[in-house]
Amino acid sequence: MKLEMICTGEEVLSGQIIDTNAAWVANTMMELGIETQHRITVGDRLEDLKNAFIERSHHADVIIVNGGLGPTSDDMSAEAMALAKSEELVENIEWRETLVNWFARNNRTMAKSNLKQAWLPESAVMVDNPVGTACGFRVKLNKAWLFFTPGVPFELKHMIKEQFIPFIKEEYGISENTSLKKLLTIGHGESSLEDSLSPLNLPDGITLGYRSSMPHIEIKIFARGDKAISKLPSVTKKVKSILGIAVVAEDRPTLAAEIHNRLYQSGFSLSIAESCTGGLITSQLIDFAGSSSYLHHGLVTYSNESKVKILGVNPQILDDYGAVSIATVEAMARGARDILDSDFALSTSGIAGPDGGSDDKPVGTVAIALATKHAVYSQMIKLPSRSRQLVRSISAAIAYDMLRRALLGEAVIVDYPSISRFAK
Amino acid sequence: MKLEMICTGEEVLSGQIIDTNAAWVANTMMELGIETQHRITVGDRLEDLKNAFIERSHHADVIIVNGGLGPTSDDMSAEAMALAKSEELVENIEWRETLVNWFARNNRTMAKSNLKQAWLPESAVMVDNPVGTACGFRVKLNKAWLFFTPGVPFELKHMIKEQFIPFIKEEYGISENTSLKKLLTIGHGESSLEDSLSPLNLPDGITLGYRSSMPHIEIKIFARGDKAISKLPSVTKKVKSILGIAVVAEDRPTLAAEIHNRLYQSGFSLSIAESCTGGLITSQLIDFAGSSSYLHHGLVTYSNESKVKILGVNPQILDDYGAVSIATVEAMARGARDILDSDFALSTSGIAGPDGGSDDKPVGTVAIALATKHAVYSQMIKLPSRSRQLVRSISAAIAYDMLRRALLGEAVIVDYPSISRFAK
Repeated sequence: MKLEMICTGEEVLSGQIIDTNAAWVANTMMELGIETQHRITVGDRLEDLKNAFIERSHHADVIIVNGGLGPTSDDMSAEAMALAKSEELVENIEWRETLVNWFARNNRTMAKSNLKQAWLPESAVMVDNPVGTACGFRVKLNKAWLFFTPGVPFELKHMIKEQFIPFIKEEYGISENTSLKKLLTIGHGESSLEDSLSPLNLPDGITLGYRSSMPHIEIKIFARGDKAISKLPSVTKKVKSILGIAVVAEDRPTLAAEIHNRLYQSGFSLSIAESCTGGLITSQLIDFAGSSSYLHHGLVTYSNESKVKILGVNPQILDDYGAVSIATVEAMARGARDILDSDFALSTSGIAGPDGGSDDKPVGTVAIALATKHAVYSQMIKLPSRSRQLVRSISAAIAYDMLRRALLGEAVIVDYPSISRFAK
Repeated sequence: MKLEMICTGEEVLSGQIIDTNAAWVANTMMELGIETQHRITVGDRLEDLKNAFIERSHHADVIIVNGGLGPTSDDMSAEAMALAKSEELVENIEWRETLVNWFARNNRTMAKSNLKQAWLPESAVMVDNPVGTACGFRVKLNKAWLFFTPGVPFELKHMIKEQFIPFIKEEYGISENTSLKKLLTIGHGESSLEDSLSPLNLPDGITLGYRSSMPHIEIKIFARGDKAISKLPSVTKKVKSILGIAVVAEDRPTLAAEIHNRLYQSGFSLSIAESCTGGLITSQLIDFAGSSSYLHHGLVTYSNESKVKILGVNPQILDDYGAVSIATVEAMARGARDILDSDFALSTSGIAGPDGGSDDKPVGTVAIALATKHAVYSQMIKLPSRSRQLVRSISAAIAYDMLRRALLGEAVIVDYPSISRFAK
């Protein structure tokens, strides 16, 4: 089965939006063992869309078309498809009713333009979208099925999983089984991971892939066929033993997700005092429903005064050692934990840049501490030549990993290959 | 001049890498008033590359080809171009010398495969790359110039700026002047914005575009040609007067950016107490370097106990009115402001969902307050049928807008078209 993709939208073509939908679709299909073979990005021009549909319909078996299903005048995927097929747009009564009901149920007035979303090419098969107002549809043209999906990422993902994948499974059969194991790592560069793992003798049907999404790099161990799948656990074990402390989670997209799940299940409580990470540690956890069950508070104490007033840091410590110091983050973590006697508290203080560095403490210097009911653990790391965003996200990841290791009863502070520490 | 792009590389096509090069090129060209009209992404397959070159050479005037110029076997742009042109690859002596010198100068041994980078299609014009080992080149095929650029972002950017743009300026003359005005809006759906603005009689050469990046929708007023540019201010004024309070910033990507700039310039200080927004308001500001100059602290007081202990909210208020209430957010804002006597404090408390709602206060109920030195302003809004993320990001946007309006001396609380409020 030859899969292609056509992405529509002036914003994607013009670079106003980076096309994460295309990458997500390709990645998701790859996990089923299906490669995307070709991708076109076209703007909101009827002729260009029509020509792309016709031209690719001679090459591909299935074409995912993304975007252009909305209510506005620059949403023209349905119209372009009707032109390509030389047929009329007709109103889909079922979707019209869905729209009317949706707006009524949500107590919202329907703009006239919304009804446009129910007009589909005559030969189209409507594809339900239970999470949005744009229905999908599919049309057969020449050798290809063109499958139209909404541009809103959340709606697209829903439709690919619930509608598109079942459709191609039924239409084309997907013979071989595949399986995928994902290991989340921190503290290694991609080439250093690859160098470490390249001596591995992989069984037939197993391949390794890397996806960098800093501060994490994800290792994907892909198995195609039942024989390879049966060897996936032992290969995974080998990879983990080679990489050691760098592997921080399995089958989780981020360290925050790993921490959320561990805390949610454990019943332990957490408080957070952030300076340079500026709320990142807290907000990444609060992204998950249920985080209120363990998160007492997250305090961004950006100024020295707030460290003193809110966390009870002794002003003498700030004077003697500075805001970015082991002594200060330890006092911050203790202070944050004490307020509600939480089981754990994390704290950070550092110089995220681009300004504010000194010879002693250059940009990228970050102190991190973890307070438990019985002890405080701390370290000061060096993250030179990283952007402000990266200094913050790496620091948050290391803080999470300190907590993760404490929850597992392992050594809290370890040496990551690509991150150096100040001697204590 | 019709500009297109062909991106090569299995990692880009398969979604292992998100294609930021394409977005950067399109954006850079757009700033010169040149739209990218079409983009193809192909993997490292000789036939696919050759076919893409030939097919698009009948449509475009200029095609930027990105990637596939490296030394490895999956770098095959030059070979594919030679095939498309039915000509041989020949060694470019000048680039061979450059390579030999480059490796000698950097004290590195040249792998044999590196010499491959000097082999170009016979009719190619070599394009210098002073920052890497892959030279670019351009070839005329049918009506199009195909301009080959390296995949390394740094090298690509250098070549586009130093070589490509001067080339098209000379070859095609500078196109018409263009200008772009961006208005950031909140509280309107995209279709409702379009309905409001569609009666506008736009002068020739002026077009409206919409970019949804919730909770914001950006309106882009694009003017092509000097006559249209001279009318841009009056069109902008008309659009603003039609949309009224919905327009919250000009030429800024987000409300957080607008607030950051206003606070940074004003010298006023801000404190934040967040419950349902969970650090979002704080972390969006801390993304900007310089935010430490005005941000005193941002406190995520998720539990009732932390609202009492850290912000000094009277437990009786929580008992009588609940955590999600006007009385509670007002006390939170007052408490947050008082700690360091900040000029302003924002607070939020709400039910982000998916669970936790009641008949009285369903999921999507959010109370927001702004405390100044002299008063407290508050409102409780309804955001039904929104995801947890969207409830939080809309709430943060409305909090920012309350502060923005206070900074401008305007009414702090207003009715946004698509957002309803609880009666006080």
